Amino acid sequence: MSELTLYLAPGTCAMAVRIALVEANAPHRVARLDFAAGEQRSPEYLAINPKGRVPALVTERGVLTETPALLLYVAQRFPQADLAPLDDPFLLARMQEVNSFLASTVHVSHAHGRRPGRWADDEQAMAAMQAKMPQNMRDGFDQIERHYLAGPWVLGERFSLADIYLFVVASWLAGDGVPIDEFPKVAAHTRRMLARPAVQQAIQV
Amino acid sequence: MSELTLYLAPGTCAMAVRIALVEANAPHRVARLDFAAGEQRSPEYLAINPKGRVPALVTERGVLTETPALLLYVAQRFPQADLAPLDDPFLLARMQEVNSFLASTVHVSHAHGRRPGRWADDEQAMAAMQAKMPQNMRDGFDQIERHYLAGPWVLGERFSLADIYLFVVASWLAGDGVPIDEFPKVAAHTRRMLARPAVQQAIQV
Repeated sequence: MSELTLYLAPGTCAMAVRIALVEANAPHRVARLDFAAGEQRSPEYLAINPKGRVPALVTERGVLTETPALLLYVAQRFPQADLAPLDDPFLLARMQEVNSFLASTVHVSHAHGRRPGRWADDEQAMAAMQAKMPQNMRDGFDQIERHYLAGPWVLGERFSLADIYLFVVASWLAGDGVPIDEFPKVAAHTRRMLARPAVQQAIQV
Repeated sequence: MSELTLYLAPGTCAMAVRIALVEANAPHRVARLDFAAGEQRSPEYLAINPKGRVPALVTERGVLTETPALLLYVAQRFPQADLAPLDDPFLLARMQEVNSFLASTVHVSHAHGRRPGRWADDEQAMAAMQAKMPQNMRDGFDQIERHYLAGPWVLGERFSLADIYLFVVASWLAGDGVPIDEFPKVAAHTRRMLARPAVQQAIQV
């Protein structure tokens, strides 16, 4: 099996794919991009991922992008790691539901604090988006706390990709001005994740 | 097999799930919400989907939400319809990559035109988001046109869920002030979709 190459930047959602690869004991190498230096917009990187974002995963059949897609790819390609309930349509959909909510709603809320210029050009509008961001992060995590974290893991007793992704997105809360302790189940989940050797190894990237 | 109930509103991404169900010949009933009347925020609906959005799919094991998750659920639960390359990790990831991009980037761009109040409270900021929305829709469809639509279908010769979702999101372009003919491959794809009997049946909801 040829080696996979994961393009990532620390602190981004690409860390979820890195953790999944380590959890799966998947042979891979990591290529770090320096976002501050704009490497994600370099011609070299745009030839790999024309969207100019991370993650991107180079496989022997081509490049794949988008965190939820890459997470499922890792689970399906390394099934012995049992990172997803691949053969249970309902449970897999529950996991994908959480991953999709994290990607399309919670990550998007977060991005309005960091990169409001994606959605408006004037300074006042960007400031207004940044001002509302913490409330939107709270709303998203309130949904997770109340409805989508059965405990101890997202799916209950069964660890899955949704735990990995939730852990990474929850790690943004403090920087977004929202104390994670406002969400006791999420905070306990983060502690549980940090106790996993693979997570400790993965985040030393 | 018990019947599924799909909550949707016409013109929303929930139409993709409706089309998938019809393509799969899946027994289901449709429950229409009147967004103009605020039915998605009614206590009755919030008990079904606390996020107050569509789609929601009521199954015999519980309620599922989020379009990409529901699409994959339909494909996995009705495998005879062959709506996804379930056993090919790379090709499935390619399909999921497109679905994830549609959900997390293109749909989000569109929503800044329709519901900018999600991300800022003041009127000027909302107007600034609406002003930038068509450019962001163009950028998203430019990526699809150049990189993610092999033709005739998203995955090439193989029809999949990504075609269904792309068709629905592309149907928003005209209302967003972006002529679909700016993207000839996408426009041809829409015509191809409209020629499918299941699509014709599904959109008469």
